[in-house]
Amino acid sequence: MIQKRIIGTPINTEAVVKVIEDGYRAWDKLMVTDKLPQMLSVCIDENKNQIVISYDMDKDDIVYGLGESMRGINKRGYIYHSLCADDPNHTEDKVSLYGAHNFLVVQGKENFGLFVDCPGKVIFDIGYTSSSKLEITCESKDANLYYLTGNTPMEIVKEFRELIGRSYIPPKWGMGFGQCRWSYMDENEVTAVADGYQNNGIPVDSIYLDIDYMEAYKDFTLHKERFPEFEDFVHKMKDRGIRLVPIIDAGVKIEKGYDVYEEGVSNDYFCKDEDGNDYVAGVWPGKVHFPDVLNSDVRKWFGQKYRFLTDKGIEGFWNDMNEPAIFYSEKHLKEVFEKIEEYKSKELDIEEFFAFTGMVAGLSNRHKDYETFYHNMDGQKIRHDLVHNLYGFNMTRAAGEALDKIEPHKRMLLFSRASYIGMHRYGGIWTGDNQSWWSHILLSMKQMVGLNMCGFLFVGSDIGGFGSNVTEDLALRFTQWGMFTPLMRNHSAAGTRRQEAYAFERTEDFKNMIRLRYFFLPYLYSEYMKAALRGDMYFRPLAWEFPDDKHATQVEDQLMIGENMMIAPVYTQNATGRYVYLPEEMKMYRFRSPMDVDVDILEKGHHYVECALNEVLVFVRQCSIIPCAGNAMSKEMKNTDTLDDKNLILLVNPNILNGEFKAVEYEMYSDDGFTKDYENPKNLRKITMRDGEILRGKRIN
Amino acid sequence: MIQKRIIGTPINTEAVVKVIEDGYRAWDKLMVTDKLPQMLSVCIDENKNQIVISYDMDKDDIVYGLGESMRGINKRGYIYHSLCADDPNHTEDKVSLYGAHNFLVVQGKENFGLFVDCPGKVIFDIGYTSSSKLEITCESKDANLYYLTGNTPMEIVKEFRELIGRSYIPPKWGMGFGQCRWSYMDENEVTAVADGYQNNGIPVDSIYLDIDYMEAYKDFTLHKERFPEFEDFVHKMKDRGIRLVPIIDAGVKIEKGYDVYEEGVSNDYFCKDEDGNDYVAGVWPGKVHFPDVLNSDVRKWFGQKYRFLTDKGIEGFWNDMNEPAIFYSEKHLKEVFEKIEEYKSKELDIEEFFAFTGMVAGLSNRHKDYETFYHNMDGQKIRHDLVHNLYGFNMTRAAGEALDKIEPHKRMLLFSRASYIGMHRYGGIWTGDNQSWWSHILLSMKQMVGLNMCGFLFVGSDIGGFGSNVTEDLALRFTQWGMFTPLMRNHSAAGTRRQEAYAFERTEDFKNMIRLRYFFLPYLYSEYMKAALRGDMYFRPLAWEFPDDKHATQVEDQLMIGENMMIAPVYTQNATGRYVYLPEEMKMYRFRSPMDVDVDILEKGHHYVECALNEVLVFVRQCSIIPCAGNAMSKEMKNTDTLDDKNLILLVNPNILNGEFKAVEYEMYSDDGFTKDYENPKNLRKITMRDGEILRGKRIN
Repeated sequence: MIQKRIIGTPINTEAVVKVIEDGYRAWDKLMVTDKLPQMLSVCIDENKNQIVISYDMDKDDIVYGLGESMRGINKRGYIYHSLCADDPNHTEDKVSLYGAHNFLVVQGKENFGLFVDCPGKVIFDIGYTSSSKLEITCESKDANLYYLTGNTPMEIVKEFRELIGRSYIPPKWGMGFGQCRWSYMDENEVTAVADGYQNNGIPVDSIYLDIDYMEAYKDFTLHKERFPEFEDFVHKMKDRGIRLVPIIDAGVKIEKGYDVYEEGVSNDYFCKDEDGNDYVAGVWPGKVHFPDVLNSDVRKWFGQKYRFLTDKGIEGFWNDMNEPAIFYSEKHLKEVFEKIEEYKSKELDIEEFFAFTGMVAGLSNRHKDYETFYHNMDGQKIRHDLVHNLYGFNMTRAAGEALDKIEPHKRMLLFSRASYIGMHRYGGIWTGDNQSWWSHILLSMKQMVGLNMCGFLFVGSDIGGFGSNVTEDLALRFTQWGMFTPLMRNHSAAGTRRQEAYAFERTEDFKNMIRLRYFFLPYLYSEYMKAALRGDMYFRPLAWEFPDDKHATQVEDQLMIGENMMIAPVYTQNATGRYVYLPEEMKMYRFRSPMDVDVDILEKGHHYVECALNEVLVFVRQCSIIPCAGNAMSKEMKNTDTLDDKNLILLVNPNILNGEFKAVEYEMYSDDGFTKDYENPKNLRKITMRDGEILRGKRIN
Repeated sequence: MIQKRIIGTPINTEAVVKVIEDGYRAWDKLMVTDKLPQMLSVCIDENKNQIVISYDMDKDDIVYGLGESMRGINKRGYIYHSLCADDPNHTEDKVSLYGAHNFLVVQGKENFGLFVDCPGKVIFDIGYTSSSKLEITCESKDANLYYLTGNTPMEIVKEFRELIGRSYIPPKWGMGFGQCRWSYMDENEVTAVADGYQNNGIPVDSIYLDIDYMEAYKDFTLHKERFPEFEDFVHKMKDRGIRLVPIIDAGVKIEKGYDVYEEGVSNDYFCKDEDGNDYVAGVWPGKVHFPDVLNSDVRKWFGQKYRFLTDKGIEGFWNDMNEPAIFYSEKHLKEVFEKIEEYKSKELDIEEFFAFTGMVAGLSNRHKDYETFYHNMDGQKIRHDLVHNLYGFNMTRAAGEALDKIEPHKRMLLFSRASYIGMHRYGGIWTGDNQSWWSHILLSMKQMVGLNMCGFLFVGSDIGGFGSNVTEDLALRFTQWGMFTPLMRNHSAAGTRRQEAYAFERTEDFKNMIRLRYFFLPYLYSEYMKAALRGDMYFRPLAWEFPDDKHATQVEDQLMIGENMMIAPVYTQNATGRYVYLPEEMKMYRFRSPMDVDVDILEKGHHYVECALNEVLVFVRQCSIIPCAGNAMSKEMKNTDTLDDKNLILLVNPNILNGEFKAVEYEMYSDDGFTKDYENPKNLRKITMRDGEILRGKRIN
């Protein structure tokens, strides 16, 4: 059951697609019934201009959700600020990342979900100030609150996902392996990367173009020296089976004669400052204006600009810097220079010295700057900070809606850095600028659960880590996790060590791991599509799948992938194995390649399992089938287009009951991977397997 | 066996106390014998002004050592720059921390130790660039190399420890619990902290005074408004059983009339710039000079200054900012302001913008500044960067040597932030400005092994984490680890959440954990003293104690404390237990307080062990006794002075052979904890226990 409460006059964020009447009276009434948590209270603080929602948590209550955020699958014990932020240093103490996903589920003495649809800053204090107190503070008096009940977190999530609409579905090639770097500077370098993969027999579906493919970082332009024959090059690469995926940034360079700039200015399509002038910020291109993507006309205009690249054969994009990131605002930079002048003229004491350096360090992504520009939200003038979290959402929506028109029948790849719930209908996300840290394998795993809950299914983290220098073993272990994420992309920052799969000594191991991705793809794709079409979870915490298992709630370093597969990546340097918990007897596969594997049955309980640097563990649930591609090791298989998902190899954990094999079934989704005919019942078929068939060698062991 | 090789004309760092002749010819000869690693090569690169030492590692070789550094107990797979650095953000990618400890042990196909006695920058590439390559690069052509052989890492370490001399021994009260914060601002605040502990029945031995106790951050001064009756106050606190431990910083404020400054200037006691003027840097007091502690006259002078505080009853110090940390150099700050002037006058493009912000961010601890000042090392003029890693060592040596003269018969508490091997004879270290991160519990555990190897026995990390905001559970779990470190201190930064043991809701749990520290202290102190007197390890990796156990090398989140105790702290948020590996059957104690405990025998192998937030696990080896204090829960026990280490409670894991109890022995060290009569044979006694005695109730279960 979903109850909605409208507080004040909230902005319609379009996070939600289902019309639900205000249940103010119902909510109020529910507050005193047994059906709702008796201690959940909503208080509107007129003085502070805040809404405060409080709940007394039980000792064993678990809190799930919040999408892309720091800390555990269980969010208890910390504080989170929902405020899209461009901060590449994801240490444990951080409170904001790039996304703002205000949905959580409390499981325990009461089970309920809460979606705080408020696009400004919202603070979730989940047992941080006081271990038993959940307190949510909206820095606004206007919000739509949705209160969801159900017997289990899964039930509540399904209800929520229906409320917010179907998740984005990528083309199948978007679930192939992609290689990125800031930046492959020109055609030659992109070609070298393609060679590096293909000459080493490593499959790859896409190579990404970071900001340097553009002319002076101007959206919808091309750098003519670096990519002189762009369209030809796009097709040349496509002939090799590789799609190029360019980046698009939020800011539009201020430059006379640049069409996007000129059109934006003359049509009043840019965000305005206090005085009604186009707002000026500094980002990659230097000084820019921000397209006012909260305005539907602007969205139409900006979205159609993508045609510049689709016309040249591009089929996918990643939208970046759309928190929006601001290196500096023109106005504040001036203030800083003036203040420095003062400092310079006097003897700096140490307090002033830190004021000086802090002021300079604080130039970027400064909240006060977000308070100085305005949107025209289809007629309504609104200050940016009040709708800050909608910017990335609507930039990506602009692209998504336009691409739907440009290519009505074709799925296009699209994902974003900043996001808000609602954007999940238009594209995926990557988890932004992570680091080459071992801890970021585990962080990524934990983030996936919250993201799936909030509708973001097409998700992944930069494999190997974006910032800082990777080591070979970290890159390999990161790949062994990333191979299970729908978006599987290796990406790294300028100035860091190269980390392509062929950049180290163990190229063969990287090749085998990436081939394993393609090997599992029939299953991963099937589970992705079912999750998208049914509002289900692709990544599931063990505790949800095994609700009666008391230990399962403790397990945050293993995940269920869809209904049949459990994974347990190694995320510790120099480790040759790890502990794994099995909530039931499972079949364990220790893969070195699709064709080199140990198989074992492991009983329910705790295990220490060996897993060398060139190995990945996959566990198959009882009575389960995992369909895998038959040609994952063949030379001909070099991307998703050449992957055979008809002749399957099945990993089977048969249903052995009293010593007898029984039939095992799997509901398999498959389609052409390009068109939008998702709902066609022909896409679903049953794979059934009986003992006899198993013995005839259909399964791998 | 120790082989020494002198390369060039190295500076005598005084890291080593044993005279060893140059074994140049022997070393050379050894290079081609079977006894030494055949692939160890030393190359002097005249052009690059470098010494490069290379070794081809075997796949399974393990590398231990490097003292205070990032990453694992096994240092393989990363690169480390030995270069004392004031950097409070200890993320995985960092290469330098505050200490420079150039000793490592390779275990595998060959077992050997290597000490690179070179006080400038030394780079240890341990399988980072190439997984099988160990490459050590000294940025100098002058170094003393020591090559040590032995059958086990422990043998090699003992040999090394004999080479470098006996580790510092603190007063026993220094092993009591201490509370610190930047800063307890005045007498009232210190009193409130003392009250907070004592009124809650939480034992405490010391309260630390951070920089604000001084007048304008001037060493050897007192802030007269904040501590108007300092000497009285010191004694008043001592009467309550609490010792105050003030901080001393490296830089001496430039201020006319300030005695330390005036004496330093008139005697030429400060480091000089290129032109022979006293070098000016900005640190806490504003502009400062650095005492040239590499000069023996300066050490004598600076050391005697501590008398200002010992005369007032102070018995312990911590030396800080002695990398030395430089917020800015006067000269470079000027350059920066001039450069900013240029930037200001023109349109900043984005490259220039980052050059501008990077320049400001790079003002602090800038390597180029270290190249612009000079020491007078007893007559020899030497540029700072070439001896950079000796500064903290010699500042602490100055204090240590002076305190030996000021109080010849009394042990004084002394520890430092920056250090080099050799300093371990004069004081301990804390691991600097860590963070309130869960990962820093584990990092701290891993650091302890390397530190002990390098002679640093009196070690500990800021409990609860120094930077960023702690949570109650993290503070408690951190305490459950810190209770086993010789230096047990809770410390936090200005502006962060308060984290004293009584600052949260679970005061009782904190009390019980700190009381458990005192409960274990007879054993911890005994093991500390034996390790110091015998060149042994207080913290030991499992792999060293159980060399035949193949899995033990994988265990980096458990440690042996001395010979009989194993610990396995919980370092994960919301975890109610953890995996523990037992290399042999052990007795497990799950303590909630010294008087509230579960006891169990756990067999050899892997276990998942419950450990709630208010519990700590202690494992006792077979045939072992752990002597504990008899009065750890009594009201009278409020610090080490009131701790009863005569009437012991014994944790006993009896020697059960064929069902019969046998005698179990422990060699116990105890002394008065104040005097320096360490070697007195009366300090050692045997505790023997037979079955009958056990049954008479001497042991806890």
